[in-house]
Amino acid sequence: MVDLFGELPETNTLSDSDVQFLDTTLRDGEQAPGISLTPTDKAEIAQKLDATGVSIIEAGSACTGVGERETILRVTNLDLDAMVTSFARGVKNDIDLALDCGVDGVNLVVPASDRHIEGKVGTTRDEVIETTVNLTEYAKDHGLWVEVLGEDGSRADLDFLERLMSGAIDAGADRICYCDTVGHATPEHTAAAVSQLAPLGPTSTHTHDDLGLAMANTLVSIGAGANLVHATVNGIGERAGNVALEEVAIALDHGYDVETVETERLYDLAQTVATATDVPLAPNKAVVGENAFAHESGIHTDGTLKDETMYEPYSPNAVGRERRLVLGKHAGRAGVRSALNEHNVEVTDDELTTIVERVKTIGERGRRITDTDLLAIADEVQGRDRDRPIELLDLTATSGGATPTASVRLAVDGEEHVASGVGSGPVDAAVTATRKALDIDATLESYHVDAITGGTNALVTVEVEVSHSDHSVSVNASDADITRASVTAMLDAFNQLLETDRRSVTVTE
Amino acid sequence: MVDLFGELPETNTLSDSDVQFLDTTLRDGEQAPGISLTPTDKAEIAQKLDATGVSIIEAGSACTGVGERETILRVTNLDLDAMVTSFARGVKNDIDLALDCGVDGVNLVVPASDRHIEGKVGTTRDEVIETTVNLTEYAKDHGLWVEVLGEDGSRADLDFLERLMSGAIDAGADRICYCDTVGHATPEHTAAAVSQLAPLGPTSTHTHDDLGLAMANTLVSIGAGANLVHATVNGIGERAGNVALEEVAIALDHGYDVETVETERLYDLAQTVATATDVPLAPNKAVVGENAFAHESGIHTDGTLKDETMYEPYSPNAVGRERRLVLGKHAGRAGVRSALNEHNVEVTDDELTTIVERVKTIGERGRRITDTDLLAIADEVQGRDRDRPIELLDLTATSGGATPTASVRLAVDGEEHVASGVGSGPVDAAVTATRKALDIDATLESYHVDAITGGTNALVTVEVEVSHSDHSVSVNASDADITRASVTAMLDAFNQLLETDRRSVTVTE
Repeated sequence: MVDLFGELPETNTLSDSDVQFLDTTLRDGEQAPGISLTPTDKAEIAQKLDATGVSIIEAGSACTGVGERETILRVTNLDLDAMVTSFARGVKNDIDLALDCGVDGVNLVVPASDRHIEGKVGTTRDEVIETTVNLTEYAKDHGLWVEVLGEDGSRADLDFLERLMSGAIDAGADRICYCDTVGHATPEHTAAAVSQLAPLGPTSTHTHDDLGLAMANTLVSIGAGANLVHATVNGIGERAGNVALEEVAIALDHGYDVETVETERLYDLAQTVATATDVPLAPNKAVVGENAFAHESGIHTDGTLKDETMYEPYSPNAVGRERRLVLGKHAGRAGVRSALNEHNVEVTDDELTTIVERVKTIGERGRRITDTDLLAIADEVQGRDRDRPIELLDLTATSGGATPTASVRLAVDGEEHVASGVGSGPVDAAVTATRKALDIDATLESYHVDAITGGTNALVTVEVEVSHSDHSVSVNASDADITRASVTAMLDAFNQLLETDRRSVTVTE
Repeated sequence: MVDLFGELPETNTLSDSDVQFLDTTLRDGEQAPGISLTPTDKAEIAQKLDATGVSIIEAGSACTGVGERETILRVTNLDLDAMVTSFARGVKNDIDLALDCGVDGVNLVVPASDRHIEGKVGTTRDEVIETTVNLTEYAKDHGLWVEVLGEDGSRADLDFLERLMSGAIDAGADRICYCDTVGHATPEHTAAAVSQLAPLGPTSTHTHDDLGLAMANTLVSIGAGANLVHATVNGIGERAGNVALEEVAIALDHGYDVETVETERLYDLAQTVATATDVPLAPNKAVVGENAFAHESGIHTDGTLKDETMYEPYSPNAVGRERRLVLGKHAGRAGVRSALNEHNVEVTDDELTTIVERVKTIGERGRRITDTDLLAIADEVQGRDRDRPIELLDLTATSGGATPTASVRLAVDGEEHVASGVGSGPVDAAVTATRKALDIDATLESYHVDAITGGTNALVTVEVEVSHSDHSVSVNASDADITRASVTAMLDAFNQLLETDRRSVTVTE
């Protein structure tokens, strides 16, 4: 028999200004496998964290190496409003190295569980307390702000943890931090631990998501008296990562009216970190994932068109984003009509019924419905000949050697155009040749290829966004030949744009 | 002033068998933008859900269309241990369509908040209760198990919600479900709502992750008396998705000793759903992400090599996985030595110091360190001439037309080999030509290209895994020309395998 959330200790009440963030994207976040941020990346992220209103930025771990120290120095030299700190293990040299980087403070990590004290470091509880006191005094003597973290605190004996942290506070530490280093604790345990530490002095909480409980543990920590949350952007970090800054910020804002940071900057921040770390966001990632404000199913799209709050807890604008309506197998009438209207296409109720039916059929085959698909269906249903001014007659691309080269032969309104081009690879050369052959004033806004897995003969899906005057279209094309898929997508997009232009002339007449 | 987790109502106690899952991957999960599962996909996932021990499988929404009904029928025909249900809106026709699919029960969804009752459906509270009662009786009369869900229940007036659900139970509903349809609620509100409903009859909970609170709300729901959790594999679903089945299962298991499903099947299930839905998992996704059991930083790797539990809350085996140690800028001595040992390379302490230094330097440039990188460094440090039996002399690939073709000229131990090949695209043709030229008995275990964004001249990173006798190596190569990157990676892998073979002969001598 178990109690779930059954014996939470009594909680504090908090005024708005009481909860702040220590962002550790640049330290714990960067420790995730495969991530390495350049000094420029770190400086850019630090500036955005500062602008977003994060109070403390842990810029790295000075003991890691010379390069890391140069990077931290780069951040401390930015002269941000936020305090800048370095991680330091419980050895004097780490504090000296942090001082060399000009940081405002250190996050001093000492082992707290017996597993870490005896098994990893090979020392004793009393020695850990002694070291902690000495190093805290040393760091304070050198003018540093000091937060003491008890590593693996969630698996530590709570009375020892209290003794350790009490020693740190007595030695002058500015803050103590409860650490669920391995993401092991339940909310009940977290609440009990933080409640025991918070009376000693200002207390932080540092949670990991191995059990999916990083958010729950952060919230109960705040409830139990913690007022500084360690978090990373996008929740990156060791293993399953740390609690996500953007989720804590929006949950506190929406759920508890506690304002912490400028939430409308969160999306841009998330994109910056995703790009710099090369850690993609799952489409269903809360707050910042591609689909967090996207609606496909008929019921949801219909409801959202009637009332924006129907299927959203808060507005996408609150985090610097916009809503997206997507068509697929669950499409409904309202969503399809709204998408057609965007392209100046008007349809009768009967035509709409047929178009929705066809959209669902394509969706059921597992395909996403692009603008081109939708308009091709509308043309067919409305008995309009589909205008395809541009046709691909021939394409050849040579790659592998020093100068990738391509040629293309197109029919544009029946007239033959031929052009050649070079590029950095077969696709680049083929796209260059295509653009030369067309000579239309248009911009390739984005070019994207989904990750290819499953073998060298796997189907490659290319998605392009092309804009022309004030219109833009997204088109995708799949082919086992990446060169052909890329050119096909480009030409489909151009055909689409030319057609929208002609239709718009008709509508305004 | 706010209370956080401060006024949770009293909770139930639960015996192990009391918490079960309704999996809605095939319905709410599939409603996520861009996802469409084929009948074969749904059948495979349903079978795996059943084998994992999920109690109820919501197989789809019968009203969506003919294709969807055929798919649901395919699942009901599997004769699983799990109960199979269909989603049904509050209209009689939806129940009839569900009956046509041979389901065991329906998840009958009726509007619960005034926003949905008045704004979306355009009806009244009393009419909703009347419809619910009638449809529940109708479904029960036709032999169906009935769960009544109050849509947008988290924004509903709780007294009305109680009246609605009380009517459903009186009309014969087997279950009622609290729905946080838009992922809006705090844990406090969730606990209050579920506490009010649970005394009426068996109660389920359905949470969404828009605020990152899906897990917290699921746990407090259980604490407040809910005993059936609606969840999806990988947490896919509308917008930010539903609560993740694997996270709830492992949190209950590890944190509360509550066994729900066979956790060691969770990883395979997650992979199956990720592949079928084409929704990638973030590397830091709890339980099933690529990095959930990976360690890079020196401290963590060192600790993990001493004691596996040092930096993991539970063993990866518990969810059918294995641990991974990764090298990068945070690498330490223990991790590097362990990686070298796997390749039969022995080094002195001084050599190790230099190798670790170089690994960190490469890592600081933002690169992941592959086996090839590590061994190349070791060779250099140990003054060994790097054996590169295979060298690329010339490569040409032609694509875009009907028959992509390539030729390659290699030097193998100084001897020239030339071969040509055709394929489905330039890469496939080039790889075929390369394999012909080499004629070595090896298998291309995997071929992966990271998603390409940023333009047609972006750097393409290709990663291949090649195996030969009982060894395998992973190698990556980057080039703006995808053909060249692919062949370079292949040849690096072959060189590496040949060298490991030769070294192993020396070691065993």
